[in-house]
Amino acid sequence: MLKTGVLISGRGSNLQSLIAACATPGFPAEIACVISNKADAGGLDHARKANIPAHVIPNRDYPTREAFESALDAKLEEHNVQLVCLAGFMRILTPWFVNRWRDRLINIHPSLLPAFPGLDTHQKAIDYGAKLAGCTVHFVRAEMDHGPIIMQAAVPVLNGDDEQTLAARVLQAEHKAYPQALRLIAENRVNVFEERTFITDATASGEALFNPEA
Amino acid sequence: MLKTGVLISGRGSNLQSLIAACATPGFPAEIACVISNKADAGGLDHARKANIPAHVIPNRDYPTREAFESALDAKLEEHNVQLVCLAGFMRILTPWFVNRWRDRLINIHPSLLPAFPGLDTHQKAIDYGAKLAGCTVHFVRAEMDHGPIIMQAAVPVLNGDDEQTLAARVLQAEHKAYPQALRLIAENRVNVFEERTFITDATASGEALFNPEA
Repeated sequence: MLKTGVLISGRGSNLQSLIAACATPGFPAEIACVISNKADAGGLDHARKANIPAHVIPNRDYPTREAFESALDAKLEEHNVQLVCLAGFMRILTPWFVNRWRDRLINIHPSLLPAFPGLDTHQKAIDYGAKLAGCTVHFVRAEMDHGPIIMQAAVPVLNGDDEQTLAARVLQAEHKAYPQALRLIAENRVNVFEERTFITDATASGEALFNPEA
Repeated sequence: MLKTGVLISGRGSNLQSLIAACATPGFPAEIACVISNKADAGGLDHARKANIPAHVIPNRDYPTREAFESALDAKLEEHNVQLVCLAGFMRILTPWFVNRWRDRLINIHPSLLPAFPGLDTHQKAIDYGAKLAGCTVHFVRAEMDHGPIIMQAAVPVLNGDDEQTLAARVLQAEHKAYPQALRLIAENRVNVFEERTFITDATASGEALFNPEA
């Protein structure tokens, strides 16, 4: 069982999808701990309800980013975490932390990278007039929204979409893609070579969810 | 029937898909003429076999781009063309031509724009490590690979893909997306507003073709 740590800052809807996946029989990963930098993050309750150790490490309590990240790192090591999943964690991580967890630290971004990196991705996609949106699970590098891609999933953009309706549709894709990516890693099927991933025994790591409501 | 002109420079595989679509009963567009800037373009034969007027207008015969495009324009008008489809047409068009045919001139680009514009798009997608590739049908603007998007279609990138295998898979998506986009326009269902399209009576203009071989 791959011991996974999840970092959150808010409601943690992707955390919930990971908790649900790990609860299914035969899933090859378990969530060893959840850490939030915010004491009022809703995701902490989800973790506690699932009997997962939930910790608050408030970044404001630390004088520097490095000190904060050292505390994060110590807590992850305490739980023997092997892989870290960012799930709406709203702190930019320093190269020190990112390199320490290189190829053991993943993130989900709500666009089909390289399209629409950064914040406000859904509004950017709508303003651009994209007809497909989606999400990307990737290993984290020091450069934001950058790193070897494990999985991408697409959903349509509909005529009347606003930021909220599109975000909700993409979120359904996220909730499928993130657990699938975690499973691939836990099964030792994801190899990073020259900053690209190669997935063992898989034909495709791209997926479409065209009727996610169905 | 929407009278459509198709501009080509080579084998015209997208032209073939448009010819095939227009030959299906009830399809709301017809190809009024095919024009190539190259005398040896393979697509000319496809047009002639389908009894479509096929013309060669060699750009080299004209002293300026404007003179060349005036000849193109005259030939299109001669056939009462209402919509122009670029299908592997390898000349960059001037703002004069683009604006003259504004919202009546479409192109297909073999990537999910805004990702990977320009040339060598498949190699760029592979080098980036994208897990989804695809194509985009869009109205042409003076800026290359830019303009209101009518349709996008996605296909997976597979582990062992090289430029050729990925191009072949994307091409299958192109052959479905381009006729669908032509149909939407011919049915007067595509409205351009503030540089985005809104499709009447359609829920989605994004599509996935995940087993295009099937």
